[in-house]
This record gives sequence, C-alpha cells and structure tokens, in this order.
Amino acid sequence: MQIAKVCGTVVSTHKESSLTGVKFLVLQYVDEQGNLRPEFEVAADSVGAGINEWVLVSRGSAARQSPSSANRPLDALVIGIIDTVSMDTGLLYSKREEEY
Amino acid sequence: MQIAKVCGTVVSTHKESSLTGVKFLVLQYVDEQGNLRPEFEVAADSVGAGINEWVLVSRGSAARQSPSSANRPLDALVIGIIDTVSMDTGLLYSKREEEY
Amino acid sequence: MQIAKVCGTVVSTHKESSLTGVKFLVLQYVDEQGNLRPEFEVAADSVGAGINEWVLVSRGSAARQSPSSANRPLDALVIGIIDTVSMDTGLLYSKREEEY
Amino acid sequence: MQIAKVCGTVVSTHKESSLTGVKFLVLQYVDEQGNLRPEFEVAADSVGAGINEWVLVSRGSAARQSPSSANRPLDALVIGIIDTVSMDTGLLYSKREEEY
Amino acid sequence: MQIAKVCGTVVSTHKESSLTGVKFLVLQYVDEQGNLRPEFEVAADSVGAGINEWVLVSRGSAARQSPSSANRPLDALVIGIIDTVSMDTGLLYSKREEEY
Repeated sequence: MQIAKVCGTVVSTHKESSLTGVKFLVLQYVDEQGNLRPEFEVAADSVGAGINEWVLVSRGSAARQSPSSANRPLDALVIGIIDTVSMDTGLLYSKREEEY
Repeated sequence: MQIAKVCGTVVSTHKESSLTGVKFLVLQYVDEQGNLRPEFEVAADSVGAGINEWVLVSRGSAARQSPSSANRPLDALVIGIIDTVSMDTGLLYSKREEEY
Repeated sequence: MQIAKVCGTVVSTHKESSLTGVKFLVLQYVDEQGNLRPEFEVAADSVGAGINEWVLVSRGSAARQSPSSANRPLDALVIGIIDTVSMDTGLLYSKREEEY
Repeated sequence: MQIAKVCGTVVSTHKESSLTGVKFLVLQYVDEQGNLRPEFEVAADSVGAGINEWVLVSRGSAARQSPSSANRPLDALVIGIIDTVSMDTGLLYSKREEEY
Repeated sequence: MQIAKVCGTVVSTHKESSLTGVKFLVLQYVDEQGNLRPEFEVAADSVGAGINEWVLVSRGSAARQSPSSANRPLDALVIGIIDTVSMDTGLLYSKREEEY
C-alpha cells in the first residue's frame, strides 16, 4: 500500500454504468520524509476520507476486494484513514496533531 | 485511476480476434498542475470519449471489469469522462470552461 | 496498452513446460514523438508480428486473455499490429509509409 | 519480490472492515549495494517481522495468496524474514551479523 | 517479460508456510545494450537457473501460472533460461559464447 494525502475530488457524470455512486478522490503520494511527491492518483473511497487526511491506498486488483468496489473497473481504493505513521527515527505523522 | 487527456487513436486491423470492434484511444497522462506528462497509454474506450477530453483511466485487471472489455486482452480502459477536477488549491479542470 | 516496435527475438529451450511453442519478441517502447524509449520488454506473440513492425502490447493478467496464452506464465502479449497512430497534432505512424 | 527493511508501522483505526487485526509495516526498499532506496511501501505482515529486519515483500495479487490476507484489499505482503542475501560478489546481508 | 541475469540467492527460513522449498534468486535486469540495470528483483525459480545465466522473468499474477508456484504469494518467477537474444542490430547475447 502507499501513504497518500487527500487533495481533491473528481466528478464524472458520463462514466461506466457500474460506477454510479462511487466517490473519486485525488490523492498525492507522500515520501519517507512526509513531503508530497509529484505523482498523484485517483482512488475510490471506501472509508469516507476527507480533504487533507492521510490515507492508505491499495492499487491493482486489491482495489476490488471490498463490498463497495467489487466487480467495478477500479484500480485504486482508499482502504483506511491513517492515525499515525511511526518510523524508527520518530513519529512521521499523527492525525491528532494535524501538523501536516 | 489516472487522469489523462485523449490525444489520438490507434488503428489495428490485424489483431487478436476478440478485439474486433474495440476502439483504441491514445491518452497522455496529466500531472498535478494540469500539464501533460510525457508518458502515454493506449486504452480501450467504454464511454465514447473524444479528442481533447479529460478522462479517468483504469489499468490492469480493472480494465476488464466492464461488459465491453471482459475476457479481452486489455490492460487499460477509459471509465469516465471528467467534468471537473477540484483540488484543495482550486479548480484544476472544468470540462465546461474547456480551458485545457 | 503500450505502443512498441519489434526489434528482436529471444530463444529459450530450457523453459517452463507450458511455454513450448511460444514465440518471444523483444519490443522497445515508443514515446509520444515516435522515438524509441530505452526500456524494452519481451512479449509473447499472438498475431505473427515481424521485425520493425509497430505493435500494441498488453501487460499483466491481460496477457493471458487469449487462447494462445491462457494459463501460461506470461505477463506481456502482442495483441495487434498497428496500421496507424493518429495524434491531434498529425499522423505519428503509418505502417504503409514505413517511415519508422 | 523485493528486498526491503522494516522501518516503521502505520496505525489506522478507521479502515475497511476486513482489515481488522492486520498489522501494517512501513518498508523501505534496498538497492543492490544494500543501501535504502527512497521509495517506501506499506505492507501487511504475515510472518511477525520486526523493526530493522530485512524482509521479502510480494506485491499485487500475490499479497492475497496467504490465509491471513486472502480476500482483503491488500496489495503488499511481507512473506519472509531474510537470513542472508548472497550475491556473486559476496555476502550482501546476513541477519546474524546485523551489519545493516 | 524481462531479461535478467541471475546474480545471487536469498535464504529465508522464517517465511509464509506455503513457500517451503521455493528457491529465491536475486536477478538484475539487463538493458537493451546488454548492461545490467541498477534495479533488481527476487524471483522464484521454476527452471533450475544458475548464477550468471540470463533468464526470462515473469511478474505479477503470471508468476503463479506454473505448478510449482500456483497459490503461493509469489510475484516474480524465472520461466526460462535464455539461449540467445537476437536484435535487429545483431546478437545481444548467446549463452554458448558466455560473453556476458
């Protein structure tokens, strides 16, 4: 999985029919120092994540292993809202402190 | 999923037999500032996207989770035409304004 | 899918038993200006592609969605010989003109 | 598979329901000289790996081929704790020596 | 598939139980000029490849399409020992000549 920050949303009204009701979040990946990487990803949301939250994202067929995403043409899914990322060098992120 | 812009088409008459009737679009990926990235991708189209439209593209086995693509040797599928991409820093793209 | 040019072949006599009879082509990916990128790929051939032809290649599980490749340990398959690649800026490639 | 070093953990209380009880490790990939690469990955743990250990990590659908990970939206799994990595040029890593 | 050179082995005694007996090879990818690329990969071996041999490696779910790898958490498999790689510009590799 990758660590990413929710930084936007995508609206698409004309889409593959099984995607009705799916919320698309724009994510930016986070590097090992807590900075945003230039790449971004659009993922379906299974957990109700909001702007600026750090999340775990699964890609590939993993993105369809959830009741809300099964059998849909999705290749990325937000699977959890991150509380903390603890590295051997210290705390990289804490949702409570909202430092990032 | 990735955000991409439709910038071309590929014609192949001599192809794997299950691909008869599939339309191949050339896509260029879009970066987080709305610029085109150098990489491109060829995707099957499930939504009738046209040149210059911004689209959502799914890759991998996700590309075969649609009635028009199931059981075909496809690894990329256009799954929706994008209306808007809204970032925390403002509107990145709006189909109506056709700024991009 | 990716656009690639056939630039070689691989021979392997000692291989996984299900691969008997599979032809392995060496492909080089093509960038959006029609130049060869440094990366290359070895793909099984389902369409009888020849040296110097431009082809469409599918990767991942897509490579096994063809009668000749199903249930074999293949992750890349040539799925079509390209006639033309048309970009919004003009014709990138035409097999007939053999310019590339 | 990739060789990686365990360098942290991720805690997520609000997550996809099938992920209850899954431990998330932050891994940093190791290059061919034994140095840490900048990219990192979050993987589920199937073997009880601890901080600073070198591990083998499988990605993609491989990550769900274990009783503890099947049918969960996981795309990376620690599948083994590494004892030694032996290269033709000598020993790159030995858990016993704990040089890295 | 990718062309790679076998350059080492990984030993892991504490691993996911289905992996007992699997041999892990360290591979380095080869570029289009026959030089080793910096990236490396650990793959299971289905063909008895030895140090310094050039091999074909399949990644992703393809790595589990062999009797020895099915249903195991493996994402890379050596599927063949390469005899020759012939490019349009000449012979890149020949096992018999052992030039590389």
